[in-house]
Amino acid sequence: MIMINENFNALKGNYLFFETGKRVSDYRKMNPGARIIRLGIGDVTEPLSQSIIDGLKEAVMEMGVRETFQGYPPSEGYDFLRNIISETEYKARGIDISPDEIFISTGAKEDTANIQELFSKDIKIAIPDPVYPVYADSNIMAGRDKIVYLPCTSENDFLPDLPEEIPDLIYLCFPNNPTGRAINHDGLKKWVDYARQKKAVILFDAAYEAYIRGEGIPHSIFEIEGAFEVAVEFRSLSKSAGFTGTRCSYTVIPDKLKVPDKSSEFHSLKDLWLRRQSTKSNGVAYIIQKGAYRYFTEQGRSENRRIVDYYLENAATIGRGISTLGLKYSGAVNSPYVWCNVPEGLTSWQFFDELLNQCNIVGTPGSGFGSCGEGYFRLTGFGERKDINEAVERLVKFK
Amino acid sequence: MIMINENFNALKGNYLFFETGKRVSDYRKMNPGARIIRLGIGDVTEPLSQSIIDGLKEAVMEMGVRETFQGYPPSEGYDFLRNIISETEYKARGIDISPDEIFISTGAKEDTANIQELFSKDIKIAIPDPVYPVYADSNIMAGRDKIVYLPCTSENDFLPDLPEEIPDLIYLCFPNNPTGRAINHDGLKKWVDYARQKKAVILFDAAYEAYIRGEGIPHSIFEIEGAFEVAVEFRSLSKSAGFTGTRCSYTVIPDKLKVPDKSSEFHSLKDLWLRRQSTKSNGVAYIIQKGAYRYFTEQGRSENRRIVDYYLENAATIGRGISTLGLKYSGAVNSPYVWCNVPEGLTSWQFFDELLNQCNIVGTPGSGFGSCGEGYFRLTGFGERKDINEAVERLVKFK
Repeated sequence: MIMINENFNALKGNYLFFETGKRVSDYRKMNPGARIIRLGIGDVTEPLSQSIIDGLKEAVMEMGVRETFQGYPPSEGYDFLRNIISETEYKARGIDISPDEIFISTGAKEDTANIQELFSKDIKIAIPDPVYPVYADSNIMAGRDKIVYLPCTSENDFLPDLPEEIPDLIYLCFPNNPTGRAINHDGLKKWVDYARQKKAVILFDAAYEAYIRGEGIPHSIFEIEGAFEVAVEFRSLSKSAGFTGTRCSYTVIPDKLKVPDKSSEFHSLKDLWLRRQSTKSNGVAYIIQKGAYRYFTEQGRSENRRIVDYYLENAATIGRGISTLGLKYSGAVNSPYVWCNVPEGLTSWQFFDELLNQCNIVGTPGSGFGSCGEGYFRLTGFGERKDINEAVERLVKFK
Repeated sequence: MIMINENFNALKGNYLFFETGKRVSDYRKMNPGARIIRLGIGDVTEPLSQSIIDGLKEAVMEMGVRETFQGYPPSEGYDFLRNIISETEYKARGIDISPDEIFISTGAKEDTANIQELFSKDIKIAIPDPVYPVYADSNIMAGRDKIVYLPCTSENDFLPDLPEEIPDLIYLCFPNNPTGRAINHDGLKKWVDYARQKKAVILFDAAYEAYIRGEGIPHSIFEIEGAFEVAVEFRSLSKSAGFTGTRCSYTVIPDKLKVPDKSSEFHSLKDLWLRRQSTKSNGVAYIIQKGAYRYFTEQGRSENRRIVDYYLENAATIGRGISTLGLKYSGAVNSPYVWCNVPEGLTSWQFFDELLNQCNIVGTPGSGFGSCGEGYFRLTGFGERKDINEAVERLVKFK
């Protein structure tokens, strides 16, 4: 008789955005005239830049003509895209990542969810708390229950401490979602050294890399000596090029990263990923990859840097508003997120309700990202400037 | 210490198209002037139709304007696409499939590979032989080793017999890749009845549904009474709308399909899939879904029916050429594939070499699709008419 995968029963309900959505819609019913400003979900709002639109348009035209029509893409991505990423994101920064170490995909969510398939079911994983839910849920679905949580609170300045219980696979995300915290070279080196010493692998989620503006903050984990042997890096065009609805990302797995099987035979993780991807996927649409290519051109970078600056200025504006309430926050620099303390005496959810009621502003309660998120609240710099300005005007009147 | 997923060691090498590619490139080196005609890989060659190009172009323009820009898509697909599929593919044929039973994805390969995640690791699966490799490989990667093979040879007219050893999950593909065989209503009903009786689930891969022209051949497994409780259907735009390089497909899971856990509590498979998809994916690009939408319009259908007819006529032409050699074949009607017997005394690989040497034609040796494929050979109707005609002219001179 057919049976379900019991591990799905171990997942927590997907309540966070369902619950925030429900409370907003209830409020709207009671207050039909309210102009609600949504700073809750981390989704971009600015249109795709001109270079990218031009690249997409050109590719659409090519698909309509027999001579330039494209069938199945390579499951690892087109060379034209892998080459320009290797050149502009890595080699131009002195990092020796070659095109064949870069794998194009439809999203960093997909890749961070799928990569656990390459590893034994018996491994112990380390996950920050608070955290983006994909890391834990994808492991729970696969039946892994040995999870070490890495608390990130104001007490450690939102930088996780090395755990006493030794994990095999370590998820890190910097600049972080949801805390907005970036990590400097020494902070990240500590983790690379630890992984090397403990024979662990680091999965480094760098989806917000394009928001880094500070000095001394690594844009890639491969800027750290020794990372080539222990780290995988996830990058995304979602927040850097406005691709949340266009879907393109890439994952970097160095040649030097080898992982043993039970017989102590070492396997190239890159080869396992290629096998996984070529078996289970037919890659990313040609049109999308041609659009993505334009992001990495000089013109595309310049256009999109202005858009990221716009979101960063929004976040800084929100941060200033939060400060006037006497609340501390992290993020707002090197990140589109503002992760603030909630006013004393309120839980995250109570602050959510108060902010909605008093100011008609929607954010996300920190406890939704994990138990260490209680007492915190996430606001995002994604949105139109006039809405952000209005949100801050309302925010400063919060009581 | 980190360890790999040992199940990857149980996968066979991905040799088939690597090996055919290598033999072709070796031949080309020895015969630089040869004009080789490739009828090996099942990839479309005609450009996207005008309606689809128009839909894609319009969506690209929308993405460049703030008011119409789209962020994260719903992981289950946009309503506009799910609605038109429900109407045109199902309700118009008297099949009661509602939009919320339809899940949009980047490919049937992806979905047929991922769906096994919803089931227990202990189940026994049934897989045709010969077969598209994804079904077996995705299960092997997940650690399933209880596989019942369903032989499909000329002895059973390429229609698998009900197995004596009872499986829990049954993969069927009609019209079939690689045999080109379609199944009629009674033949498919036999499987639905069997699944109901044995409490099994059928995964029905209908990627070649658009090639069906015969009467009495179901376009959907949901035309069969009782299938709503036991079947999942996979459809794709790859071969119907030329989307191999554009990436869009859909999977249909009826509300009525419930699967128990070990405590005999029944779960909606649709809900599990939605949970899986929303946890591990952010769906399909807006642009691609807008292009896909146009396929289902009256104009899009009409344009693409002409293209499918073109491939079908190519396949029929190849079939006639094969007949002149005195070889039997299946397919070429209701399918773009011609699955022929190889000449007596030759293996599939020997015929591959002979055809390459004598006629400069590339096909695919049947043994590459499984042990029951030995003695057979696959040719495809994908290609330009003039190449197909020339291939047949060469073929009839084969000795």
